[in-house]
Amino acid sequence: MIKFDLIYDADFLDQSYKQASKDILQQIKQEISDGASGYYNLPYESQDLIDKVQAYGNAFKHINTIAVIGIGGSSLGTKAIYEFLRHKTKNTKKIIFFENPDPIDITEKFMAIDKNSTQFLLISKSGSTVEPMSIFKAIIYNFNLKIDNNENIIAITDHDSALYKFADKHNIKTFTLKDNVGGRFSVLSSVGIVPLTLAGFDTKKILDGAVETLESFLNGDTKHIFDKAINLAQNKDKHPINVIFSYSNTLKEFTQWYVQLWAESLGKIDKDSKRTGLTPVGHIGAVDQHSFLQLIIEGPRDKTVTFIKIDDFENSLHVPKYTLDYIQKSDYINGHTFNELINAECDATMQSVHEQGVNVDIITLDKINEENIGELIMYYELLTSAVGIMLNINTYNQEGVELGKRILVKKFQN
Amino acid sequence: MIKFDLIYDADFLDQSYKQASKDILQQIKQEISDGASGYYNLPYESQDLIDKVQAYGNAFKHINTIAVIGIGGSSLGTKAIYEFLRHKTKNTKKIIFFENPDPIDITEKFMAIDKNSTQFLLISKSGSTVEPMSIFKAIIYNFNLKIDNNENIIAITDHDSALYKFADKHNIKTFTLKDNVGGRFSVLSSVGIVPLTLAGFDTKKILDGAVETLESFLNGDTKHIFDKAINLAQNKDKHPINVIFSYSNTLKEFTQWYVQLWAESLGKIDKDSKRTGLTPVGHIGAVDQHSFLQLIIEGPRDKTVTFIKIDDFENSLHVPKYTLDYIQKSDYINGHTFNELINAECDATMQSVHEQGVNVDIITLDKINEENIGELIMYYELLTSAVGIMLNINTYNQEGVELGKRILVKKFQN
Repeated sequence: MIKFDLIYDADFLDQSYKQASKDILQQIKQEISDGASGYYNLPYESQDLIDKVQAYGNAFKHINTIAVIGIGGSSLGTKAIYEFLRHKTKNTKKIIFFENPDPIDITEKFMAIDKNSTQFLLISKSGSTVEPMSIFKAIIYNFNLKIDNNENIIAITDHDSALYKFADKHNIKTFTLKDNVGGRFSVLSSVGIVPLTLAGFDTKKILDGAVETLESFLNGDTKHIFDKAINLAQNKDKHPINVIFSYSNTLKEFTQWYVQLWAESLGKIDKDSKRTGLTPVGHIGAVDQHSFLQLIIEGPRDKTVTFIKIDDFENSLHVPKYTLDYIQKSDYINGHTFNELINAECDATMQSVHEQGVNVDIITLDKINEENIGELIMYYELLTSAVGIMLNINTYNQEGVELGKRILVKKFQN
Repeated sequence: MIKFDLIYDADFLDQSYKQASKDILQQIKQEISDGASGYYNLPYESQDLIDKVQAYGNAFKHINTIAVIGIGGSSLGTKAIYEFLRHKTKNTKKIIFFENPDPIDITEKFMAIDKNSTQFLLISKSGSTVEPMSIFKAIIYNFNLKIDNNENIIAITDHDSALYKFADKHNIKTFTLKDNVGGRFSVLSSVGIVPLTLAGFDTKKILDGAVETLESFLNGDTKHIFDKAINLAQNKDKHPINVIFSYSNTLKEFTQWYVQLWAESLGKIDKDSKRTGLTPVGHIGAVDQHSFLQLIIEGPRDKTVTFIKIDDFENSLHVPKYTLDYIQKSDYINGHTFNELINAECDATMQSVHEQGVNVDIITLDKINEENIGELIMYYELLTSAVGIMLNINTYNQEGVELGKRILVKKFQN
């Protein structure tokens, strides 16, 4: 269960909000029916996928490690869920992510892998992304993997992509995703559901959480999403930067997933050929109170801040009632749990930021569980789509990154 | 050795740049002589510290883990150096960082620690920071540590702070730092040098690198620092966001250190009572080309971008010359090293960003070594001081975070 509170300096009952909300809802229903993006269907479509992966169960009994070879949308969402749930789910397999073509990072990960107990998942929508393809080749060489009929390799890719054809030819197990599901919206497709199910997470509950958010949104019951999206888009020039402060280390990778979703979806040339967008920044509380907070408080008032907190960490670790000579100043926390401390820090920081006239909102998860991460993911995807509609852009493409790719190829052709 | 290249749309030979450079240099010399900040002296003063720690050598022979208990400036710099050098320095001890009062994170780290082979370093300038003090108490309780004469505990704190008095009373080893060295400028003081020397890193070379940068700066030989600082400050309204794209996972923690240094130093009410500052954003290439790059290319032109790359990773991992059926599109990289690939991605991205009219600069480290991280740290500290002078602010305080701290205390008193 998640609670959403907006503490905005705005009149959300204003007629213009009502009209814009209606427009957003209508356009999203249009996107669903014309297939502009396929992510809306994933919480339903991916249910079958779970059964399929679980049916392979016996073939994977000897596996204790999943190596995900993918970058950007092919890894960030899986990482977000894995890091959020890892500590509380017993008997799950380890997931290692091969993302960056950094030789030191790859070499270190090679040393951590035993090929006989590892399932390699090569994930690329197109099958032509240079980083995972290069790393995949290095993995084949390093571990002397055979390709034909290798049960330890799985490919996840668009139907009929180059990678699909490769896998088909060599009889490698393949899961597909649809053309109209972009990488950054793909975590609830085979891209995230296959590795997480294989690793032993209860992905069914993740999808259930996503369904819940999606259905209340489509029923018009999530006023806070409309209000926030409209306000962010209307004030994009005044508040061009959106900061997330997540008060739990388990949400570190989630904030990275948000940064990609937001930056790549909303940083666009709009339909009037104007540059637009909102800059996402991800931080972790209470740590980054000792880093970024000063800038929010005294710096330019160009930011909005979203606080994400977890009501109940289900952990009773507490600060012992010790009074140490001379260092009694922090004794006020004695006897309290760390759960209480980190959340009180969140509340105090939120209050101090709000007192500066900054628009803040608070997302409160009751617990760390599968349904909540599913809800949170769908919430951010819907929020992104809603802001995209308000900004009058194509939320689902990413033309801007193509130039660099072309320059890269030329560098090696000369 | 580090190379600095500015590709800015600016006339750095302009008379105003010359004058401002002179002013900055003069004011920094003034800060050194009047002690406005003590970080300038650290590369010299900390030499003694290394000898002192090494003299304790035998007492630490049984230690294989250093537990740093500190937050913000008390951990970020040490983490940056540790993560940068860790893979290439043989026989170093493991450093575990207790930073966030997150109960799950603390519980996991407790399980990774054997108290008999761990040296606990409690780091707090004031000795009253609530997070490390609370975690320290939980550590005492969890590991049943004695306090009096415990050789496994070291305190690092300001001379005469509450923590200093506590340590003195209980005969706990203490290293001090000076009042006028703020947390975010303290990595080359006892705060960073003690844990890193204990862990077995060649901290002498780190200080040598810092001396080199500092002395060429004071000799007026680092025109690129003045030019960059002046340009960033003059264009703070046009380009309020500074992005670092570091092309190596080893620089991940360094970019976090930079974010703190920049945000907490430059986000200020200026001497005319106006809010000012520049927003730092840290990213890792090539990974975040698949995340944040789209926003830089097509979004608002409100950013400058600094690329940091490593010329020679001293790692020969290469992409094997395999041609796989159907997926030949990335074969152009076959036979090349990952070192070449990641750097070509950096160059291609830099070029594609520059073609959009974005001011970019490139910092090229010849290798991953101690001198270079020392140089890089001093470079960023000097750059920050220079920008602070141009913004007409107090770079070294952080008044903005005090309000939240007061609210926090009240929450527990009610």
